[in-house]
Amino acid sequence: MKIDYEKYPVAAIPINDVWEIYRPYLKLIEEDIRRNLDSISPLTKEIAFYIFDSGGKRIRPLLTIISSKLCGYSGEDDITLATIVEYIHTATLLHDDVIDNSEIRRGRDAARTLWGNQASILVGDFLYTKAMCKVVDIQNQDINRLISDTCRKLSEGEIIQLSYSGDTDLTEEEYLRIIEYKTGALISMTCALGGIIADLSSREKDALTEFGLNLGIAFQVADDTLDYVANKDKLGKSLGSDLQNGKITLPILHLLKYCVDNERQNIKDIIKNSYDSKENLFYILELMNRYGSIEYSLDLARSFSERAKENIAIFDNSLHKSSILALADYMVSRDH
Amino acid sequence: MKIDYEKYPVAAIPINDVWEIYRPYLKLIEEDIRRNLDSISPLTKEIAFYIFDSGGKRIRPLLTIISSKLCGYSGEDDITLATIVEYIHTATLLHDDVIDNSEIRRGRDAARTLWGNQASILVGDFLYTKAMCKVVDIQNQDINRLISDTCRKLSEGEIIQLSYSGDTDLTEEEYLRIIEYKTGALISMTCALGGIIADLSSREKDALTEFGLNLGIAFQVADDTLDYVANKDKLGKSLGSDLQNGKITLPILHLLKYCVDNERQNIKDIIKNSYDSKENLFYILELMNRYGSIEYSLDLARSFSERAKENIAIFDNSLHKSSILALADYMVSRDH
Repeated sequence: MKIDYEKYPVAAIPINDVWEIYRPYLKLIEEDIRRNLDSISPLTKEIAFYIFDSGGKRIRPLLTIISSKLCGYSGEDDITLATIVEYIHTATLLHDDVIDNSEIRRGRDAARTLWGNQASILVGDFLYTKAMCKVVDIQNQDINRLISDTCRKLSEGEIIQLSYSGDTDLTEEEYLRIIEYKTGALISMTCALGGIIADLSSREKDALTEFGLNLGIAFQVADDTLDYVANKDKLGKSLGSDLQNGKITLPILHLLKYCVDNERQNIKDIIKNSYDSKENLFYILELMNRYGSIEYSLDLARSFSERAKENIAIFDNSLHKSSILALADYMVSRDH
Repeated sequence: MKIDYEKYPVAAIPINDVWEIYRPYLKLIEEDIRRNLDSISPLTKEIAFYIFDSGGKRIRPLLTIISSKLCGYSGEDDITLATIVEYIHTATLLHDDVIDNSEIRRGRDAARTLWGNQASILVGDFLYTKAMCKVVDIQNQDINRLISDTCRKLSEGEIIQLSYSGDTDLTEEEYLRIIEYKTGALISMTCALGGIIADLSSREKDALTEFGLNLGIAFQVADDTLDYVANKDKLGKSLGSDLQNGKITLPILHLLKYCVDNERQNIKDIIKNSYDSKENLFYILELMNRYGSIEYSLDLARSFSERAKENIAIFDNSLHKSSILALADYMVSRDH
């Protein structure tokens, strides 16, 4: 695999160029993802192919690839790790869609909409166990530990989130802890894996771990905020879907803190009674606008994203560094 | 840990004595199971404790312990492995109960009855990931591989079962493949782990692997059959619950093969239309009785159990061998 890096300048890189630069690797990942989906159950394969054909951007696998290149890695285990990361991520999406009763995923019918909750749960289990089979093939204890530990955190993050469902007493600190576990941990692992296979010093591995964690938090805060901003076409999910599911996220927490008493009571009533009418949503959106909740949340996302960028300041400038920085910007932008 | 084995004769051992002999180990397992349930989510701990306090017999962990002792193992990793086995088993039960809409488990409310499907799915995920964290701590590649591969099979077995739901064209061969994956694989692993940590030759490890596989199949065939025999108090689940869930098991397959045409049509109609009335169940039970379906199925269970016993004939006679044979008998009896 040879890429003509010379034709790309090492500076601020537009995100479209990043996809272009790593396209050959992304292609290898797509092949590897599909090569490993054999199962004695044709239904498993059918569902898994449907999901992987539904056009995810493979941001996490790309982070693994770029991280490994940033660390000077030239082997092929980064492709395997990227596939593992995507299997785990997809397993969590399958379970999340059941948990949230989601009907749409990436603009298409969710697997559960077509095959039901039962198949979604089980294919999620299958992908997760497939990932673990691939992990042990690599025979690297640090990787074994990081991945198993991260998966535990993902499940814990989802459970804490569930236990705070509809709970407007959630604090910003607790909110950040939830997204650290449910999202930050996986993106942190995704980046750290690049440092581990490149066998760099712990200084660089720690930098990538922190980079991924801050980036993951930034990404989730932005995603939670855009749930109150983006339109359906853009994100492939409905406006205000978190509100519908009783998920208390940062814009709501900010609003609850700064609005006046009767507004606060109205918002709590809406959440408590699941009044997810358009009228109620627009009432909340209007308040968020008035109190600057969207702006506050996007600012916080950006501050985590900036922290992430500082984390990898220790690496020399390179095309890979510019690319991962461009990807970091993209992940907290409105376009992802 | 010292057991006064002298007081137990090496011969056919009553099952109650088996529990007595290994009680100190079972106690260590119970402690280990609970010691590892810490989570940043109190809900996780609450649900997990509820499940582990609901009185499972710990047959699988006991199989790991006895297998390891049978192989002369004297370390303490068998306790860790036994806990891992029980975590994985419990994770599958949590997901199974959601898949089957089960309200009762071991005679008590299922977790999903008390905390809902969402929490059941997520705590299942948590226990599975906790198990994997403990697995990698042992740092044994053979164990890593066996456990990850087994977990993949468990999920595949469940998916094939789901894809054959209500399908009366299922063959006996396909039925046996399903239970080989969904049940046999875990019990096989459970026994093989004892041979792996004792670091025995592959002859003995293979023997334990085959023993567990045949025993697991025997166990599941017996369990599926007793669903049409046992009363509610005994098994902690209702008579005919598989029929209710569209699970086509051996007694039904046998009946469909040997009954006359109009009976066959009636049975297919009952299954197809989910007519799970008592009247329909009794109609089927009466036919099973007439055509010897229960007897046939229990005979098949016993033949797998006999094969299992032959598998471990290569081991010298010992208290542990007598104990594991007693446990094998118990697992296909009506009392488990």
